[in-house]
Amino acid sequence: MVGTVRLAVIPGDGIGPEVVDEALKVLDAATAGSDVRFEPTRFSLGAARFLETGDVLTDDDLESIKRHDAILLGAVGGVPGDPRLAGANIERGLLLRLRFDLDHYVNLRPSVLYPGVASPLSNPGEVDFVVVREGTEGPYVGNGGAIRVGTPAEVANEVSVNTAFGVERVVRYAFALANARRRRRLTLVHKTNVLVFAGSLWKRQVDAVAAEYPDVEVDYLHVDAATIFLVTDPARFDVIVTDNLFGDILTDLAGAISGGIGLAASGNINPDGRFPSMFEPVHGSAPDIAGKGIADPTAAILSIALLLDHLGHADAATAVRTAVTADIAARGEVRRSTAEVGDAIAARIAA
Amino acid sequence: MVGTVRLAVIPGDGIGPEVVDEALKVLDAATAGSDVRFEPTRFSLGAARFLETGDVLTDDDLESIKRHDAILLGAVGGVPGDPRLAGANIERGLLLRLRFDLDHYVNLRPSVLYPGVASPLSNPGEVDFVVVREGTEGPYVGNGGAIRVGTPAEVANEVSVNTAFGVERVVRYAFALANARRRRRLTLVHKTNVLVFAGSLWKRQVDAVAAEYPDVEVDYLHVDAATIFLVTDPARFDVIVTDNLFGDILTDLAGAISGGIGLAASGNINPDGRFPSMFEPVHGSAPDIAGKGIADPTAAILSIALLLDHLGHADAATAVRTAVTADIAARGEVRRSTAEVGDAIAARIAA
Ligand SMILES: CC(C)[C@H](C(=O)O)[C@@H](O)C(=O)O
Ligand SMILES: CC(C)[C@H](C(=O)O)[C@@H](O)C(=O)O
Repeated sequence: MVGTVRLAVIPGDGIGPEVVDEALKVLDAATAGSDVRFEPTRFSLGAARFLETGDVLTDDDLESIKRHDAILLGAVGGVPGDPRLAGANIERGLLLRLRFDLDHYVNLRPSVLYPGVASPLSNPGEVDFVVVREGTEGPYVGNGGAIRVGTPAEVANEVSVNTAFGVERVVRYAFALANARRRRRLTLVHKTNVLVFAGSLWKRQVDAVAAEYPDVEVDYLHVDAATIFLVTDPARFDVIVTDNLFGDILTDLAGAISGGIGLAASGNINPDGRFPSMFEPVHGSAPDIAGKGIADPTAAILSIALLLDHLGHADAATAVRTAVTADIAARGEVRRSTAEVGDAIAARIAA
Repeated sequence: MVGTVRLAVIPGDGIGPEVVDEALKVLDAATAGSDVRFEPTRFSLGAARFLETGDVLTDDDLESIKRHDAILLGAVGGVPGDPRLAGANIERGLLLRLRFDLDHYVNLRPSVLYPGVASPLSNPGEVDFVVVREGTEGPYVGNGGAIRVGTPAEVANEVSVNTAFGVERVVRYAFALANARRRRRLTLVHKTNVLVFAGSLWKRQVDAVAAEYPDVEVDYLHVDAATIFLVTDPARFDVIVTDNLFGDILTDLAGAISGGIGLAASGNINPDGRFPSMFEPVHGSAPDIAGKGIADPTAAILSIALLLDHLGHADAATAVRTAVTADIAARGEVRRSTAEVGDAIAARIAA
């Protein structure tokens, strides 16, 4: 893509704005002198905006965001337990609404244990896998309800909705990724023995697409067993494809074993290109350390690499990853500020 | 309980019968010379029975099992992918049917890292917590369905059903346990920001019962964050209370960090005493190592301790746990057979 990329930037709450600043700094460094220019538009969204105006995400916001080529999001969410936020669900109303309305059906979450990073596992081996988490279906659809709320006869249901349309497209994405860009090993994670209807749909879609990819080795694990292997033998994984909720759980665990979600990047991708894709660190807004300039911007910076990849700037993406890898390897005991980390990585790219 | 305990024994498939034999051996040792006598009745159930007769669990089986005071189950499930089992769902038809029909609303799963056991975590700290997993509701109810199966327009739904009745009783059990027998710290695990109806019900029930237990410190974690803490700081947990599916996932992970599910015991408990409770190792039937006499019977033996606890034989339960702890600490590099482990633990109890 040559020319100007309209980038919607949602710094959000807590440490969001701090890590976004560093991510944009690195984006500048990675595209300096190239024929692409990023033009950021900032959107004030999140708990802070809600407290000011009462809005979570208006239709106008959404329409305006849609007119961009991509989105960079820092983190959203106020201080847990803040009574003024009791009525709002920023996660559902903002983050999930963006993922659903912009049809981000691939939630791409790589896990890499970088040289020099400590894992809580004593013998992690080579950790380098990617979770392809479905982003628009499953238990996340918001298809629940309750009756007799607050009485002893209350019933609260949550419906996981899964469609051949929705499962097939994310499974195809995962196979294509495994085949073209990875080590050709795909693991479906589900709970087919209990969630028999959804599980059967996922299993059949994987089996069907597998037939088109004879070079991709296919494996199946129940979600409970998958958590065991993530701590005993993470090297067995290459591409994991799974539903929205299982993907949520597995990627936090994956982040933890790869040295913490301070390093975990993600892309909420609409592969069709009908809507802008959104890139965000997996971590939250961490209100407890906000404003101190000590948040680690690495996950946000690695999300820039995913953004560049997505837009077809593979060289710039590689430059970001190489600089991050070198920076991580050089990290010592001295704790740097958020800006110092961003500066150091940007400087490596410029050099 | 003085007198005779009618024990329904379901050895099941694979290594099930092997570990059950050792568990019964240890049960004998632990109750020898006491005023209680266990009278086992064996039930042939599982994949093997299905292949022979086509039955998974008949109403007669179930009625007969109900006439017992407790159940010991080894493991059920055939060889994965066995085409003759394609039509059967032994897990749903047998294991889950027992849990549901016998109203096992507490699925009790302790995690202890025994001295001498290697954890995959480099710095696990003190691991000693118990997961109180709800056993009769949530996404496990079997309330799913699909339309247009096998077509591109297929829709497959799974409904998680949660009731005030069902949530309150398991939450009460968890608080009572935390208060009377543990370190008075209870963590609710759910996904309240996404599963808002079920999450709100769980949260309100915990808040309400918490008011009756001012000495119990209460904490909440999203399930994704809980997996992070299980690998970075498992010592923070004492009692976890959670739904059926989250409990399934967390307890496999918990087993892994405590040295493997070869050590993880569980009780499916009907605290009302209307139906027999069922005790089983968390591991499966492991067909790959079945018949070789090399399966580790420790989880089945620790399930005997839970059974004895449940029936009010606290001293015998402690004797089993003490013997297991000592045996584990004495384990060297030499691999013992299944029977040798059972013999050694029984001998320690007798001594
Ligand atoms: C904040 C929350 C809604 C979100 C999710 O569950 O998807 C987060 O945990 C994530 O993984 O991005
Ligand atoms: C076999 C399966 C149905 C079962 C479950 O999901 O409960 C198992 O994983 C367990 O944890 O006991």
